[in-house]
Amino acid sequence: MSKAVVLISGGLDSAVTLFFAIKKGYKCHSITFDYGQRHTRELLSARRIAKAGNSELKIIKLGLSWKGSSLLNKDMKLPLDRSIKQIKKDIPSTYVPARNTIFLSIATSFAEAIGASFVFIGAHFEDSSGYPDCRIEYLKAFDALIKLGTKKGLEGDLALRFPLIDKTKKEIIRLGASLKVPFQFTWSCYKGGDRPCMRCDSCILRAKGFRELGLKDPLVN
Amino acid sequence: MSKAVVLISGGLDSAVTLFFAIKKGYKCHSITFDYGQRHTRELLSARRIAKAGNSELKIIKLGLSWKGSSLLNKDMKLPLDRSIKQIKKDIPSTYVPARNTIFLSIATSFAEAIGASFVFIGAHFEDSSGYPDCRIEYLKAFDALIKLGTKKGLEGDLALRFPLIDKTKKEIIRLGASLKVPFQFTWSCYKGGDRPCMRCDSCILRAKGFRELGLKDPLVN
Repeated sequence: MSKAVVLISGGLDSAVTLFFAIKKGYKCHSITFDYGQRHTRELLSARRIAKAGNSELKIIKLGLSWKGSSLLNKDMKLPLDRSIKQIKKDIPSTYVPARNTIFLSIATSFAEAIGASFVFIGAHFEDSSGYPDCRIEYLKAFDALIKLGTKKGLEGDLALRFPLIDKTKKEIIRLGASLKVPFQFTWSCYKGGDRPCMRCDSCILRAKGFRELGLKDPLVN
Repeated sequence: MSKAVVLISGGLDSAVTLFFAIKKGYKCHSITFDYGQRHTRELLSARRIAKAGNSELKIIKLGLSWKGSSLLNKDMKLPLDRSIKQIKKDIPSTYVPARNTIFLSIATSFAEAIGASFVFIGAHFEDSSGYPDCRIEYLKAFDALIKLGTKKGLEGDLALRFPLIDKTKKEIIRLGASLKVPFQFTWSCYKGGDRPCMRCDSCILRAKGFRELGLKDPLVN
């Protein structure tokens, strides 16, 4: 049984990715990061999701003391009530410098240390226009980096997988439903609290996906 | 005055790189990592080197709890008394999975957050046969990743520099001497302690460099 390391954030996309990798037959080790985000609600979600998938969860504490993002700095305003067109236009203030590169590098190191052959990430193209490190060109470049810069990669036994990259949110939710992903445990909202704000970019994209699919989001009453 | 982030380890190569970047006129921010290495002697060296260069030093604590390397795990034996030929032949047990990828990703994030235009690393080809993440192909791939995966990189304002890559240890020491690098503050030995062991790969390569140049290493009496 091949091992895989799956990046999970507590959000919906990475939860679907974990259940996808489990379904594919990998022994999945989950990894998530406590990196100074605005709220730690998503860490609770990551714990619940990993537990639901019977996947061991490693939480990495990263003391990033710089604050160049509204996702890290509570003094900065989150963008709210934007249209889908606006969301897709710019790199938003929620961009965290080199975040996926940091997460992927640590996941790659962990994978190599435990003898895993794959690292899974749930990035997808709907985020692409906003976040440069969610684009397929970037992910392919990281896969190339693994194959050049690690021992297992050089041996042809470590690679990056991004199975959601070309899917819309609607398609991801449909896939998740078929895999019985416990959506009620996931958390997408950029704010913390007990209930999603329904106004941040992440809530807006999630709501659009459920609406288009004609499904009810268990987090929203 | 452009800003640069310089990875320093406390070792000789990265000290030369810092003084090289300072000489080039960059305002240099140093960054180093407390990542669970066998000893923290090199952190003391990193502090002294940064201070000598009037460079602010950021120490990042990384809780990597995996131990797949003799540089992290004191229960594993360090390779000792190897010939230069042996050193150049294999990936040694001191290889730390994806170490440079982790260090570079965090340095890149820091650079973007503080508005720096360059990240400097002191990797060089004499380490290449041993460490896959010290090779020029790898470093070029990481530079490409910065340009795809970060906002400043996409804007053409963030890049990786590796000025020592094609130099031998002898040439690096010669350059360092011309830049008045305080070699007495540097630490290369894989073991901690008060004095270099003179038996590990790192001590052997350093001694060879000083010897070939006809210079005395201030750490060795």
